[in-house]
Amino acid sequence: MNPTDSQAADNDDPAARSRAGHWDAQFQAQLLAAYRDGLLHDTIPFWLDRSIDLEHGGFLLMRDRDGTLLDTDKGVWQQGRFTWMLGELYNQVQQRPEWLEAALHGGRFLSEHCFDPADGRMWFHVTREGKPIRKRRYAYTESFAAVAFGELAQATGDSRWADQAERTFRRFLDHHRHSPEVRSKFTPTRPTRGIGIPMITIATAQQLRDSIELPDAKALIDQSIESIRQYHVKPESKCVMETVGLEGEIIDHFDGRTLNPGHAIEASWFILLEGKLRADRSLVELGCHMLDWMWQRGWDQQYGGLLYFVDVRGLPVQEYWHDMKFWWPHNEALIATLLAYQLTDNPRYASWHTQIHEWAYQHFPDREHGEWYGYLHRDGRLSVPLKGNLWKGPFHLPRMQLICWKLLEEMQGNTSHD
Amino acid sequence: MNPTDSQAADNDDPAARSRAGHWDAQFQAQLLAAYRDGLLHDTIPFWLDRSIDLEHGGFLLMRDRDGTLLDTDKGVWQQGRFTWMLGELYNQVQQRPEWLEAALHGGRFLSEHCFDPADGRMWFHVTREGKPIRKRRYAYTESFAAVAFGELAQATGDSRWADQAERTFRRFLDHHRHSPEVRSKFTPTRPTRGIGIPMITIATAQQLRDSIELPDAKALIDQSIESIRQYHVKPESKCVMETVGLEGEIIDHFDGRTLNPGHAIEASWFILLEGKLRADRSLVELGCHMLDWMWQRGWDQQYGGLLYFVDVRGLPVQEYWHDMKFWWPHNEALIATLLAYQLTDNPRYASWHTQIHEWAYQHFPDREHGEWYGYLHRDGRLSVPLKGNLWKGPFHLPRMQLICWKLLEEMQGNTSHD
Repeated sequence: MNPTDSQAADNDDPAARSRAGHWDAQFQAQLLAAYRDGLLHDTIPFWLDRSIDLEHGGFLLMRDRDGTLLDTDKGVWQQGRFTWMLGELYNQVQQRPEWLEAALHGGRFLSEHCFDPADGRMWFHVTREGKPIRKRRYAYTESFAAVAFGELAQATGDSRWADQAERTFRRFLDHHRHSPEVRSKFTPTRPTRGIGIPMITIATAQQLRDSIELPDAKALIDQSIESIRQYHVKPESKCVMETVGLEGEIIDHFDGRTLNPGHAIEASWFILLEGKLRADRSLVELGCHMLDWMWQRGWDQQYGGLLYFVDVRGLPVQEYWHDMKFWWPHNEALIATLLAYQLTDNPRYASWHTQIHEWAYQHFPDREHGEWYGYLHRDGRLSVPLKGNLWKGPFHLPRMQLICWKLLEEMQGNTSHD
Repeated sequence: MNPTDSQAADNDDPAARSRAGHWDAQFQAQLLAAYRDGLLHDTIPFWLDRSIDLEHGGFLLMRDRDGTLLDTDKGVWQQGRFTWMLGELYNQVQQRPEWLEAALHGGRFLSEHCFDPADGRMWFHVTREGKPIRKRRYAYTESFAAVAFGELAQATGDSRWADQAERTFRRFLDHHRHSPEVRSKFTPTRPTRGIGIPMITIATAQQLRDSIELPDAKALIDQSIESIRQYHVKPESKCVMETVGLEGEIIDHFDGRTLNPGHAIEASWFILLEGKLRADRSLVELGCHMLDWMWQRGWDQQYGGLLYFVDVRGLPVQEYWHDMKFWWPHNEALIATLLAYQLTDNPRYASWHTQIHEWAYQHFPDREHGEWYGYLHRDGRLSVPLKGNLWKGPFHLPRMQLICWKLLEEMQGNTSHD
């Protein structure tokens, strides 16, 4: 069976076994090849072969399904994320000079054009030339740039990149700790805390611990996991709340009731990864609970795939596009289920991984031009065929392909030594 | 034929004739009854019978399909709009004491709880008790409250409401003319102008001219129509741009290319109405062009109904929910096509009105609990069944029903005198 071809799966014994959570070595090898080859021969070339802006620096990433440029603007999230991805490939996969060169090209654009000299914060959206269009209230741009700079530090050994990585991450942390600006959209009447900041803190600190040996990474990760456990994880209702009151209270209004299963599942694997690195079973357990509950909440029993938003009490949500299927929750759930399987050996996770692999690979890949579509309707029909915009770029898909490839390599190693 | 029942239409000669743009008196009378009875016996009772908050003032409007309250918060747009609607019914339809009482109830909540004493601007979102949750960068809340206060002035003769109406409208105008806050989301790199501000200025000035004889209404309307004509209307490409550069340049990026046909069609009938009141054929011509072009851009040839967003060059749009069918563009297009038909006698507009009436009445009404759904998928399937949230409330639907009823009454009068 080719794991990317679910239609063949139904007539194939190994596939039926794999859905029941029994993976044999052959099936694992096929999965591994699908992720590795998809990364190296499809996703990365789709972007790298056409996106380097030799004239103005950075990358031109807002592309139609066939790679045609739709918009010359540069979303700074994606500039940072592609730079990180290229550095990660160089540092983790192979020291290919073209990956390092492209990563440095991205890093220079970030450094030179994406910071606001007035306050040291980063822009969210710049023109092709790097002129600022928009800054956002939240500082996620800074977190993505920080991990990009970290990879460049690791790849080059140049401490200036390490300094910039750490400084940029501190700017992210300080902004969310101290700046009243973050809360200025809302009044103090109903203060909230979102899961985004602690979860991105975990992922960024994990990256910077690897790349630049960030000294307080562990403490930051501990605080953030504790914050998620204390405020967002609700064992009594078996769910992970996206937004709660300052003490973790459920806010029984539209926004407070809205769950984002893909986001919580992404958070679950950040915690699973930490549990793996520390060999801490309580973290693995926490991550598995989060995955279990949000899989149950988010998996679409009718059409398959992960719903974007659901209401914690099953009421209508205010976001009318709630039932669309986006590429990234599927990428994150592929990682989470595979990592949970590696850490627990529970066949449920193998079965879920097979299930979401089949749904995702049946609906998201563009068979003609490569890469994945980003935006499907609930039943899997295509909504918008583009490959890149302010929100979608070379990040969730290649990160998933890289991580799942490497996890399967480890699991293969374990299997062969069993 | 019952104009609300499109399934009967296909087997019925008058219906076929109506789709070809030939309306006989009987068909017009049926249309009139559908709008009038829908307004008086369905839409208004759905809201009025359950929404008055006797404890904290204002209206509880965030409701599920059966009227169950989903959220006790109050969206101030909807507080103002329902107050306006009730005042308009009292002033235009019948002096029912319960309409005036409810309108005054809404007006008091707006006055007492929805202004920020710090700067005189209005909140966008408050708690049930009227505590502020959120203010928005744009001042549309002020425009909806202004017309609400205007109706109360007209209904009661109390000059304090008239003063408040005028003051609130001036706050809207000043904010968009002078406040740097409006532009603070974006830097000066690529300044834009949106059609929203001039079109809402027209509609608000038209209302306040009627209700409080706003002295400079004509001048404000003239400037705003001129602004739309000069910057947003593009005869060479037969479209109305939602967002352009300061001199009307097409901004060839995602946001600049995104058309909002329902919004432009709403603007078209504000201008058609002005043409009608002034007996100014050049305004009628402008409004008809806007309607013609944006109908062609927005009508979904495949499934019927109006698409929410389309790209001016037919490229993918960044808004992934672009192809949903929302209630309000259909309400606005029902008004625009009927008004264009009244003003031009062109059978194309009768045919379009019949066409969108059939599609809308086949898909939006909730046959069990009354009122209309707001959010459908492209093919007409329901997305979210709720009736009210921050964005949807008793406004676009009952305004359409009232205006179309009254237009058909005028047309009936004309027919009977022919």
